[in-house]
Amino acid sequence: MVDHEREANNGVEWRVKVLQDGSSVKLEPAETGIIQKAWLGLAGLLLAMKMKVAGFLNKVWNIGADDPRKVIHGLKVGLALSLVSVFYYTRPLYDGVGGTAIWAVMTVVVIFEFSVGACLCKGFNRATATLTGGALALGFHYLAEKSGKTFEPVILSISVFLLASAATFSRFIPVIKDRFDYGITIFILTFSFVSVSGYRVENLITMAQQRLSTIAIGVSICFCVCIFICPVWAGGDLHFLIVRNMEKLACSLEGLVTEYFNDKNSSEDDKSRSKKWQEYKCILNSKGSEDSLSKLAIWEPAHGNFGFKHPWKQYLKIGAAIRRCAYCVEALNGCINSDVQAPEYIKTHLNEVCIRLSSEASKVLKEAASSMKTTMKSPYIDSFVGEMNIAVEELHTALRTLPNKKLITPSQGTETMSLIEALPMIPVSSLLIEISARIEGVVDAVEELAELAGFKPADDDEKNEESIEAQGKVVTVEIQQV
Amino acid sequence: MVDHEREANNGVEWRVKVLQDGSSVKLEPAETGIIQKAWLGLAGLLLAMKMKVAGFLNKVWNIGADDPRKVIHGLKVGLALSLVSVFYYTRPLYDGVGGTAIWAVMTVVVIFEFSVGACLCKGFNRATATLTGGALALGFHYLAEKSGKTFEPVILSISVFLLASAATFSRFIPVIKDRFDYGITIFILTFSFVSVSGYRVENLITMAQQRLSTIAIGVSICFCVCIFICPVWAGGDLHFLIVRNMEKLACSLEGLVTEYFNDKNSSEDDKSRSKKWQEYKCILNSKGSEDSLSKLAIWEPAHGNFGFKHPWKQYLKIGAAIRRCAYCVEALNGCINSDVQAPEYIKTHLNEVCIRLSSEASKVLKEAASSMKTTMKSPYIDSFVGEMNIAVEELHTALRTLPNKKLITPSQGTETMSLIEALPMIPVSSLLIEISARIEGVVDAVEELAELAGFKPADDDEKNEESIEAQGKVVTVEIQQV
Repeated sequence: MVDHEREANNGVEWRVKVLQDGSSVKLEPAETGIIQKAWLGLAGLLLAMKMKVAGFLNKVWNIGADDPRKVIHGLKVGLALSLVSVFYYTRPLYDGVGGTAIWAVMTVVVIFEFSVGACLCKGFNRATATLTGGALALGFHYLAEKSGKTFEPVILSISVFLLASAATFSRFIPVIKDRFDYGITIFILTFSFVSVSGYRVENLITMAQQRLSTIAIGVSICFCVCIFICPVWAGGDLHFLIVRNMEKLACSLEGLVTEYFNDKNSSEDDKSRSKKWQEYKCILNSKGSEDSLSKLAIWEPAHGNFGFKHPWKQYLKIGAAIRRCAYCVEALNGCINSDVQAPEYIKTHLNEVCIRLSSEASKVLKEAASSMKTTMKSPYIDSFVGEMNIAVEELHTALRTLPNKKLITPSQGTETMSLIEALPMIPVSSLLIEISARIEGVVDAVEELAELAGFKPADDDEKNEESIEAQGKVVTVEIQQV
Repeated sequence: MVDHEREANNGVEWRVKVLQDGSSVKLEPAETGIIQKAWLGLAGLLLAMKMKVAGFLNKVWNIGADDPRKVIHGLKVGLALSLVSVFYYTRPLYDGVGGTAIWAVMTVVVIFEFSVGACLCKGFNRATATLTGGALALGFHYLAEKSGKTFEPVILSISVFLLASAATFSRFIPVIKDRFDYGITIFILTFSFVSVSGYRVENLITMAQQRLSTIAIGVSICFCVCIFICPVWAGGDLHFLIVRNMEKLACSLEGLVTEYFNDKNSSEDDKSRSKKWQEYKCILNSKGSEDSLSKLAIWEPAHGNFGFKHPWKQYLKIGAAIRRCAYCVEALNGCINSDVQAPEYIKTHLNEVCIRLSSEASKVLKEAASSMKTTMKSPYIDSFVGEMNIAVEELHTALRTLPNKKLITPSQGTETMSLIEALPMIPVSSLLIEISARIEGVVDAVEELAELAGFKPADDDEKNEESIEAQGKVVTVEIQQV
């Protein structure tokens, strides 16, 4: 867009050129002098800044609008901090914990996390690590005190050195890293804190006791605010992330294949097509999110459809199975967009069966997704898989009979199909067959989940439909890539 | 293994069965009584525990042996903590910072990270956030004090609520999350800390000053230990991760294709084959590591071959290009291990040209990797790409002439090759062609890096070879999946 403006009092006419993305501004003054130049430069700078700030604010607004839970999370942190500061402002409460109320503030700030799982994990880690680290440090302190003033700092230093080294190294052990990473930090912190300051502070036990009680206050405030005000469940996020990935895969697969076969003037809108069905690409990199969500989910109590020992590990298997399909869809996308293409009249011969296979495969995926969404066993899934396998057989047959096909070309009348021209079609078909095989892997993983989590069988059709409808209203969950 | 033992003084004979994985033990006593049963149970339990502990210790030992830098990191943390505790034990130093030396200990524990980049990032974040948070809190404190005793806690609470909410929400903005995530925590912490405790503490400015100086002491000790004692550079790790990924891809590609064509009794050792060339699979999920390493690398000063403004972002592009190849190799692996296979005599006809293509492609990848390793422009890469493209053309030709090929089968003499039987070969070939195209993308990305980072041209062949040899000794870097 080009913007014409006339600044009357300066007698200068200039054109402000705002670039398409709204991030950069170019000034093209019609007349120039030194002061005018400076003025123009300043005005341009200000305008550019304004545009940048507006663009940034717009982005920030969108982050909040896309997922209001993020805004709510901010407010929850503010609320928890305000609640905890009440301890500081109220004289009787303040005296009760002997002036160490500030530790409660600290606990709230470092523990409060977006999801309930992360919050519980950190709270549990902090409490346990403070306890064990403090107890161990008191033990060493007692030993050091017994051995006289000269040796005391030596023993304390050596114990800090050894324990900190060992604890730091232990963070590289996967089991510990996954569950107690934060705990180790707090363990080292508390241990060095108590054992080092124990050298100068007299009533160490009272200090430890007060510290523990303030941490307990901070942790309980965190837990209450996190769980009872608009809770965000890592487990629910993981569940819907997997469901959404399945749906995305289904849409991309069907869309890519259908457009490839139906597209008459493929060279023109290659670009727009390749943009439209690329949703599957975010599946390729969602392993990180899935892993971290499943680690957090195991800390969460039973909620909604998810029981106490919900098999969160199984979700990782489903995720991996989905990703295996996505890798093949990525290769399929490569074949579809490659330079060498089969002529239109050859495409037509595999058209029907390929589209049918892709739509059957996508139906299977969608059914598996909806079975997960409703946490009910699907009564149709087996027959859908059967249909898909019939379509696979049909494609096999179509490929096998390809060279014998007679076809009518406008110019030469009836002739045998040239197999060489059909060559580019064969990888597409064979990838479709491979994808169907991998989709069966997804279905198996989902059925295993249904067993482990005890999904109800959906024998009552009407009930099932109602439930699907009800669940369809669940707000779709967007997970940030970790 | 079955272990026979005779316990003479108990007169009991039993067999201890240790399962293959060394994790579980089964006791099968020959004669039983109640005491003997209990005794056996206890012995079995102790043995099982011993095996478990031994297995765990073995794993821990391997973690250290595989990457000694992890052990060194533990020792470095211990050293930094011991150094900082000297401040506490030495009377003059302790008096100098007015008893707040404990903050230095805390700083060391939370800032010290594995790589230099992470340590600098956290240190910078902590220092900046403490400064700004503290200054802002002092300002609000001044305002609140002016407005009288009644309003003071109200104003303080509201300011804490608003700033904490806004700061927490700002963590969801990608730019801020990538660089200042830790800083935001510390900002909220310091702000609430100072503004809440300011309500009760009189000499607030002195406290803030002392806190800053102890944090400065902690941060400088961290930086010195982290940078000057066996530093671990995130940038170097990223560099070698990419190089290793390229080499893994090259090996897997060549290995898979060569074994597929040379394997005469493929049905038997399918399992062993599929295990041997699966190294490429770790490329599929390495995006997380690459992203986090590149975020840390930008904090690092110039070191070794990496200058001040080394283009770390470009490594992500190379990584993505490598992953695009790996997706196709994954699909290729699926085709190679699929149930429907072409008969041996058809494989033979594409044997030579496919193996040649895969070896040329792998040569290109290895050359690109070695060019990165030595940070020198490769003089051969273009000719290698040329060779690869010639091999692609040959494969195209071989596919095109396939139906006309006469072949001699032992039973029926000369006949035209059956194209139907060749069908399973076509996807393999076409994926190989697609992989070659994607490898050119990798080469382009590496060449762009060479331009951006100013790789020296390797005009002197001898020098180049020396350099390659020298760099070959660099310890291979294993990155933990983040």
